[in-house]
Formats: sequence, structure tokens, C-alpha cells
Amino acid sequence: MAVNLPPPDPAALHPVPGVELGVAMAGIRKAERKDLLVMRFAPGTTVAGVFTQNRFCAAPVVLAKRHLRKDVQALVVNTGNANAGTGAPGLERALQVCDALASHLGCEADQILPFSTGVIMEPLPVERIVAALPRALLHQDDWLSAAEAIMTTDTVPKAYSRKVRLSRGMAVVTGIAKGAGMIRPDMATMLAFLATDARVPARGLQSLLERVAERSFNCVTVDGDTSTNDSLILAATGHGPAASSGRDLLKLEVAVGEVARHLAQAIVRDGEGATKFVTIQVERGRNAEECRRVAYAVAHSPLVKTAFFASDPNLGRILAAVGNSGVRGLDTAKIDLYIDAVRVAHQGARDPAYREEQGVAAMKKPEFTVRAALNRGKAQATVWTCDFSFDYVKINAEYRT
Amino acid sequence: MAVNLPPPDPAALHPVPGVELGVAMAGIRKAERKDLLVMRFAPGTTVAGVFTQNRFCAAPVVLAKRHLRKDVQALVVNTGNANAGTGAPGLERALQVCDALASHLGCEADQILPFSTGVIMEPLPVERIVAALPRALLHQDDWLSAAEAIMTTDTVPKAYSRKVRLSRGMAVVTGIAKGAGMIRPDMATMLAFLATDARVPARGLQSLLERVAERSFNCVTVDGDTSTNDSLILAATGHGPAASSGRDLLKLEVAVGEVARHLAQAIVRDGEGATKFVTIQVERGRNAEECRRVAYAVAHSPLVKTAFFASDPNLGRILAAVGNSGVRGLDTAKIDLYIDAVRVAHQGARDPAYREEQGVAAMKKPEFTVRAALNRGKAQATVWTCDFSFDYVKINAEYRT
Repeated sequence: MAVNLPPPDPAALHPVPGVELGVAMAGIRKAERKDLLVMRFAPGTTVAGVFTQNRFCAAPVVLAKRHLRKDVQALVVNTGNANAGTGAPGLERALQVCDALASHLGCEADQILPFSTGVIMEPLPVERIVAALPRALLHQDDWLSAAEAIMTTDTVPKAYSRKVRLSRGMAVVTGIAKGAGMIRPDMATMLAFLATDARVPARGLQSLLERVAERSFNCVTVDGDTSTNDSLILAATGHGPAASSGRDLLKLEVAVGEVARHLAQAIVRDGEGATKFVTIQVERGRNAEECRRVAYAVAHSPLVKTAFFASDPNLGRILAAVGNSGVRGLDTAKIDLYIDAVRVAHQGARDPAYREEQGVAAMKKPEFTVRAALNRGKAQATVWTCDFSFDYVKINAEYRT
Repeated sequence: MAVNLPPPDPAALHPVPGVELGVAMAGIRKAERKDLLVMRFAPGTTVAGVFTQNRFCAAPVVLAKRHLRKDVQALVVNTGNANAGTGAPGLERALQVCDALASHLGCEADQILPFSTGVIMEPLPVERIVAALPRALLHQDDWLSAAEAIMTTDTVPKAYSRKVRLSRGMAVVTGIAKGAGMIRPDMATMLAFLATDARVPARGLQSLLERVAERSFNCVTVDGDTSTNDSLILAATGHGPAASSGRDLLKLEVAVGEVARHLAQAIVRDGEGATKFVTIQVERGRNAEECRRVAYAVAHSPLVKTAFFASDPNLGRILAAVGNSGVRGLDTAKIDLYIDAVRVAHQGARDPAYREEQGVAAMKKPEFTVRAALNRGKAQATVWTCDFSFDYVKINAEYRT
């Protein structure tokens, strides 16, 4: 039931020279499903990461942040168990997984970044993971299979790839992500792993990734809940061309941004119970921060989201959410509101020329844009979200995250 | 489907000397239902009010705030149309209603406080209201009928009454309220009208009401959406005993607080689609503000609310919401969590002694308490909320607020 999100075409997913993938069935939560991924990097790879701002950050996130300082050799990712809210024993277990993988790869445990997603507050079944690790060390470059191995309530695996011509040759950027609920990334998303074969110094890579996160994963929301395990990683193996100029870095950033934006939007399109993909665009604000606040106030309102589900152009709910955003000095008598190209409200009241059929027609489509002009400045912000359906309640009343 | 909320017993609703009520069917949105209320006050009545903080505040709220400065003669309340997001014509129409009532009562238009609730962004059918006004001027003291006349998606009329002995005699406090969705009052609730026959000076009455609002209507949330029309009014007619000492004022405040708390909780018990009434108590925080933030983060999380609906003691979702509250420096390794009397998490991780059946048993009840101890101070805060059910989505996908 994902919105305009076909499964990725394996032929369109370019392998990344310098990255090896391995996937196994460890039986972590369910038997007979891929639930363990190892992503190994060639020596000399630089790695950047951004992580959840939730104070209850999970044990693997604590370790991944700490281990990011050293030469990273590999990532190990399990689904089925988030190893979050597990205290000191949780840290211990995440470290055991790193230890086991390090001994296979001949490196130190602190050169491994661990990631977990799934049920919160249950002990990580570390024995099963350790037992399955050797099966996940087959050298592969199957990114689709890797995307499948990190799914939870996702209905579609999420992977995207593109090439970019740098001054010294063609580079590849490929990424995978997972996430469908507990989605309101704050500096990072559920889980997303991107890699490029371009050569980029570590510091440049980190700032590139932070800018990309701001314009991709940090612009989506499903339910306003920030996960305990959000992590976004970008590895640059250097097996391809070096990004050797400012212009190259900019081109690479555009390519990474495109992959990240595709994956971030895929998370929303596959949002729990989603039937609509909605772009909330707020413009002519004083600064980007206030535009963002307004956009999130609209995107988080359960009343607005249920109206999206019903294809009901309930302007009042949208304007009430704008008014409820907490932006100081907002003059609601100046606000214009559009659904796609139709101006539905002008200067804070219903546009006299607007007919309700126009709003219904726009909102019946699986994708549309709600645009609010605050008319008090030049800044803008965009947030992507989905509707709130019976299935969101059903999925979350029945699934134990 | 309201949670433990029987309809009010008319015999338990004490008339307030100095207050006359009148109700009519004006056909504002639906035929054959009470949708217009006039509440008239005897000369010398003092009136206090607190209003929505939503910047899109409705036309009647703008006027009610302005008119509160003068000797208030009456309130006029309609349901079926909120007269919100209606611009200058909306103000004009609200004023026409005040004008018409004033000419009936022989006073000025600015001695009338207007209130509206219902559909947003539709023009107020002022002719129908004005035509029905004479029928609403019958002198009555039927508070239950008044409560019925202000309902929208409410399934149960909300009214409560009590007596309080002051030094110079017995005073009455009676109130009505409405509201089921778009409920996250900010300084006031949807609509609530309280009256007492005690004599209280205007300034004292206003500060009494503000303190009461903080501990009643400002502690409830259904869906986190603050209405455009929230208003809470307290009238003191002076036809009964004067509150003539600090001790009297305190006793009166307790009585008003009790009525306000009952009505505020009634709104949550009758929350759209509610099947559970949940008290969120956050204690041992550094200050009340941070306790409140944590309580609202839990009460607003769609994941927590769907788990309440499912009677699923999903501790991870509750702790993730606590971690997501944005409170600075919160040490999640110190947090204890209780469901009713059962300690389910200790120092940020699952309590070893806790068995899941205990959590399920507590959460299957129609009312329970989630208590979080932050263990870093002495402050506390309480919020009352409800669960998120299929019916919330159904009601809001089908009803046009």
C-alpha cells in the first residue's frame, strides 16, 4: 500500500567499488527472513554519520558514535530487535557483536559500527547474531538484498543509486534505508546507509553529509515520533575518482543529496498505513526555522492527516495547525494557502473564487502539495509527510515496536 | 463510547442565582437540534475569561476578549459554525449577533460576549441566529439543556456543580463545557462556562480563573491540536454570599477548580474515539515546565496512544516519547516508569521483576496511570489524555470540523 513506490530495479543499483555486502538469516525475531547485514569497507574508506537526537538513544547508537572516530572497517546491522532501553547489558551485547565481527575481519572491535532496529526494550539475542555472522561474510554486491535485510514494518525495500561525473572520472553513489513508523528524524533517519567510491577526506565528508541530511531525512515525518535508533551513514571508499576540487565536491553533494532525498521520500511513501504522499511547503517566512515549524505543525496534526486520508480539503484544520505552530508574531490575516495550483485561502480567509470541488479533486490524487505563504519574508522550507489512516492505528495497535 | 462518563444528573446541577439561561434551535448546521445558548447575568456580575493561544483565533474570540473589559450582560453561544478563519466579514457577523442580542436586552453590543464552535472557515449564518434569539430569551435555569446546546462531536453533555460554604453563607458553582477533538488547550479549553453566585471582585476573579485553568483545562489533551475557539469563562453574580476573606477566596477557588477539573476530564473521557482515560504523571523533575513537556510528549505520541488502545504495555514507545521530549540534559539512565502501581522500568531499562501480564492487566482497564519519575528534582506535572482508536480516524475522516 506504499504510495507510488515500486520496488527498486536491481539492475539500476550500481555496486560501489570498495564495498562488500553480506546478508544472513539469523532468526532474530522471525525465522526464514533476512535480518542481518554486514557492510565491509576497503582500507582507506572515510565514513561520516549523523545520529538520533532522542535522549533514549539505543546502545548500538552509543557505540557507533564512539567508534566513528577510528578507521571504520565494517557496519553490522540487525533488524528484529532495536537493543534500545536496555541499559548497560545492552551496551555489552552490542560490543559482543562488534567483537565477534572484528575477529572474523582481523581488526579491532572499535573499528566496527553496530546498528539495530526492531522491538525496543528486549534483550538483543547476541548468540544468534554471532552464530549467523560467518554466513553474512560472503562477498556480494547485492544492494537490494541488503535493503531487504534491514526492513521492519516496511512493505517495500528502499534502495537508490546514481552516477556522477567528477573531473577525474565517473563515481557511483548507492544507498539503502528502512523505516515506516516512529519517523520524525531529528538530524538523521531510522537507518540509512550510503556509499560512494569517490575519494573524499573525512572532514569534508562529514559536513557534506550533515548538509544533505538537513535537506532530505530531516524533512520527512510520518507520525512525529523520533526513533531511538536513527542513523545515517555515508562511506567513501576512494576506489573510484577523487573529489579533487570544490566543484567536484559540489557535484558529489548533489548526487548524494539526490540518493538521500529519494530514500527519505521512500520512507514516507511507505509510511505506516500511508495512502497519500503530501509535500508541505511553507514560503515567504522570515527565516527557514519558522517555515519549518509551521510545516511540521501542519504535518503532525492528526486532524489534518485524517483529512488528507479522507481527501477532505478541510482548510480550517490546516489553518488552525498553522496558527498553532507557536511562531511569534505570525499575522494570520496575511496568510495565503494553496492545494497544488489552487489558491484556497487568501489573507487568512477562504478565497472567494475557490470552489470545494477543486480542493477535493487535488486531494484525491495520491500525491499533492499543500503550500502556505506567510507573506512576511523570503525564507522557505519543505516537509514530506503522509496521511493518517485506519491502517496506521491497526499496524500500531497490533505490532510491537 | 465515552470512558466512565455517565450523563449529568439534572437534579445534581444547582441553578446559580443571578444567571438566566435560554436555549433555542436555530438550524445553524442541522435542523431540530439545540444549537444556540444565551446566558444572561444579573447587574453587578463580574466576569473573567481565558482564551485560545492559537494565532488563528476566531472572530468571536477577538470580540469576546475586547468586550470582556466592560460590564458583561450576557454570553451568546452557537454550535455548528466556529466563525473562524473568516476574516473581516466574520468579525462583522459576530458583531451583528451581539447587536441583535443587545437590542433585546436593552444594553450595548460591547456588553455581550459571543462564542462559536463547529465548522471552521464557513460564513456564520447570522440571519438564522438573529431570528432564533427571541426563543433563547426564555428565563430558565436548565444547565443540562445549556450543555446540550453547545455540543459538536461530543457524545455526552458535560455539566458539573457543587456547593461551597463561605464565611457568609453557602455559594454555588456550576459549569458546562464542550469539546471532543482539536483538544490541547493552551490557557483555556474548547468552550467552558462556569458561574457562581458568590460575590468576587473582577481582578480577583480573573487571577483565580487563570490559576484554575492551569490545573484543569490546561492539563488535558486529546490530539494535540489547539482549537481556534478555546474559551473559558467564569461569572460571579454576587447574588449569593461575598467571598469576603482570603480564606473564602481559597475555598471558592477549590470549588471552582473541582468543577473545572471535572469538566476538563469529561472532555477527555468523551475524546473522539476514546476507549481509555489515561493519567500521565511525571514527577521528580527539576521544574514543573519540564515535567509538563515530558507528560505532553507521552500524551501526544501516536505510537503511545495506539498502544494504549491495544492495551499493549509497549514500554519502549513510552520511553522513546520521554526521550523525545526535548528536555535538556535528561539522563535516561535515571528514569523509572510505572503503570498504576507496577514498576515496569527501572533506571531506563526494563525492571527485572516486571512481568508483562502485569502491564497488560493494568492497561486493559478503562482508566490507568502512567507515571514517570525523572529522579532529578522535586517538581511534578499531570496531564489527562485518551487513546487513539480506529474511531478517532473514522470520526475525523468523516466529520467536517
